[in-house]
Amino acid sequence: MFDGRDIFYYDTKQVTRSAVDKRAHEDRPEVGDLRLDPLTNEWITVAHDRQKRVFLPPKELCPLCPTSNGRETEVADKDFEVVVFENRSPSFAKPKDGWKLAALDGVNTQTPEAAGRAEVIVFSDKHEGSFGTLSLEQMRTVMDAWIDRTKEISMLPYVEQVFPFENRGEEVGVTLNHPHGQIYAYPFITPRTEQMLRVAQAHFEKNKRPLLTDVIAREVKDKVRVITENDHWIAYVPFAARYSFEIHIAPKKFVPDLAELSNEAADAFPAIAKEVLQRLDGVFNIQMAYIAAWHQAPVRTGRDVLGLHLQITSVRRQPGKLKYLAGSESSMGAYIMDLKPEQSAEQLRNVRL
Amino acid sequence: MFDGRDIFYYDTKQVTRSAVDKRAHEDRPEVGDLRLDPLTNEWITVAHDRQKRVFLPPKELCPLCPTSNGRETEVADKDFEVVVFENRSPSFAKPKDGWKLAALDGVNTQTPEAAGRAEVIVFSDKHEGSFGTLSLEQMRTVMDAWIDRTKEISMLPYVEQVFPFENRGEEVGVTLNHPHGQIYAYPFITPRTEQMLRVAQAHFEKNKRPLLTDVIAREVKDKVRVITENDHWIAYVPFAARYSFEIHIAPKKFVPDLAELSNEAADAFPAIAKEVLQRLDGVFNIQMAYIAAWHQAPVRTGRDVLGLHLQITSVRRQPGKLKYLAGSESSMGAYIMDLKPEQSAEQLRNVRL
Repeated sequence: MFDGRDIFYYDTKQVTRSAVDKRAHEDRPEVGDLRLDPLTNEWITVAHDRQKRVFLPPKELCPLCPTSNGRETEVADKDFEVVVFENRSPSFAKPKDGWKLAALDGVNTQTPEAAGRAEVIVFSDKHEGSFGTLSLEQMRTVMDAWIDRTKEISMLPYVEQVFPFENRGEEVGVTLNHPHGQIYAYPFITPRTEQMLRVAQAHFEKNKRPLLTDVIAREVKDKVRVITENDHWIAYVPFAARYSFEIHIAPKKFVPDLAELSNEAADAFPAIAKEVLQRLDGVFNIQMAYIAAWHQAPVRTGRDVLGLHLQITSVRRQPGKLKYLAGSESSMGAYIMDLKPEQSAEQLRNVRL
Repeated sequence: MFDGRDIFYYDTKQVTRSAVDKRAHEDRPEVGDLRLDPLTNEWITVAHDRQKRVFLPPKELCPLCPTSNGRETEVADKDFEVVVFENRSPSFAKPKDGWKLAALDGVNTQTPEAAGRAEVIVFSDKHEGSFGTLSLEQMRTVMDAWIDRTKEISMLPYVEQVFPFENRGEEVGVTLNHPHGQIYAYPFITPRTEQMLRVAQAHFEKNKRPLLTDVIAREVKDKVRVITENDHWIAYVPFAARYSFEIHIAPKKFVPDLAELSNEAADAFPAIAKEVLQRLDGVFNIQMAYIAAWHQAPVRTGRDVLGLHLQITSVRRQPGKLKYLAGSESSMGAYIMDLKPEQSAEQLRNVRL
């Protein structure tokens, strides 16, 4: 790309991608830095060059549409199936050679570079839609891109965890409406994954089985929170959901991450994802704002104990009402749910497709 | 109150409060339940009777205004200074006798009662304003109520942690505009406090000093993030802030909670709080939406290591832009900041009062 970023096209058809990014060269923003919160021992990323990001541009100015009629966008070609490129205003980027994150604690003033990678994955060259409105074939191509990028990024020496996700809807802060997701690759294990790792490790030691395997067995046995399933995947509202509409889609056979999914499991994902997302929109007959987050085992640790699953959480709890993370959730991490998970599972199952 | 809830008036003047709540008796909502999230070992509270809460009523229907002209509100008297009562739709409530929360982990189906207490603290009988717009005297009375309620609630055998907070602004989900805060008393130690406790304990063992004491010493030494201070309190943007406008106000002398503050420190709080909240509104010359959260040591543990402080976080990062907790923050607990803490501290210091 014009500023040296990588771009990857994912195509199902034989096609030559030779379009050249004709925009004038521009320097990339400075890499941000990491600061350790002494009170929680968690890394905070300061990406102080992001304030310039474009904010909800109209279709005619969309940077994720293909280049056409001389209007140059992030994608130089005139069409594409799925495309991935590095984020123009990245939260994480390639550090200087020899970068290494020291284990820190307590009160200190170090500000290591925010090493890592931030990629944008554009789901389609059409401006309208989101992951769930793609064709099954197109969703499969996105799946391929997620798998491939997870494999590639996992090899970077400064990356500890790869996190593909989709924010959908202005209610969750989306700044571009074109159907797309993002991939964050962190140079540390994130707080939530760290916590999940600790719990999964203890469970594995006690029971000799991955925790997620036992969680799925419980959901299958209880039945009341299961939304749908196929040979390879199961979708359910978890027993202790944090949001009125929280759905987990998990592979029935334990794998640590997307890179280790079988072809058969990857092939079976689009159908269940499409059904679940249609049910989610069907509950109130509106486009539900959501965050779809792929939880993966870290690159170098916990790969026997932490299982891949997609967590979809919607901030909408009623047609006119959002769930806000206010005092209890935001400051204490203590979630208050307004609806029984069994009730929301029933509402989701009852949607007519 | 008409449904058996407790109400407490806090007055600086000698006054008899004998007004009777004349509303027809009504049963209180069912106590919700707790569910353990097997993946994180965190308690989620399911308060399934809360969906009925009133939503942004106009002044004429405000339930927190005093009773007048025959319109009966939550407060039976015709005026008041500061009043505290149990929340009509509580997230936590008195459990059955003999209730005890077992330490659970892994996959289980227990749903213990959501024991605890949820109180509303009304800052004024005037419908307009928020904590920062009260007079210093009125703020001191609120402080007294916080201190007194913390003392009282800490004695309940089923309470582990007392959390007074204020949500201000519809952007953080406020459903009543009348100036008020809330007090949540949890039957468990919340995830964030648990994490802070772990870190503070390790620091204390290593350094023989409370972590917060060392944090404050660093902020004093660095100077650049300090906003203001007086003899008893200091206000600063923390070194690793999670939000563009995050401010901590901490007592200079370590105390575990509000109940153990000296009178002198309590007297000195209103002035610094008022200044900080005025500066916060002054940055963009708009009412900033914020969450003000009192971090206190748990009732029964960590009282030598975990220090009282008020954390104010605003979800606004620019006049027209909110900070959303999207994929990285919400699903991974990994915060991305858009502004250097030193910059926001400078903006806050530069506000003309």
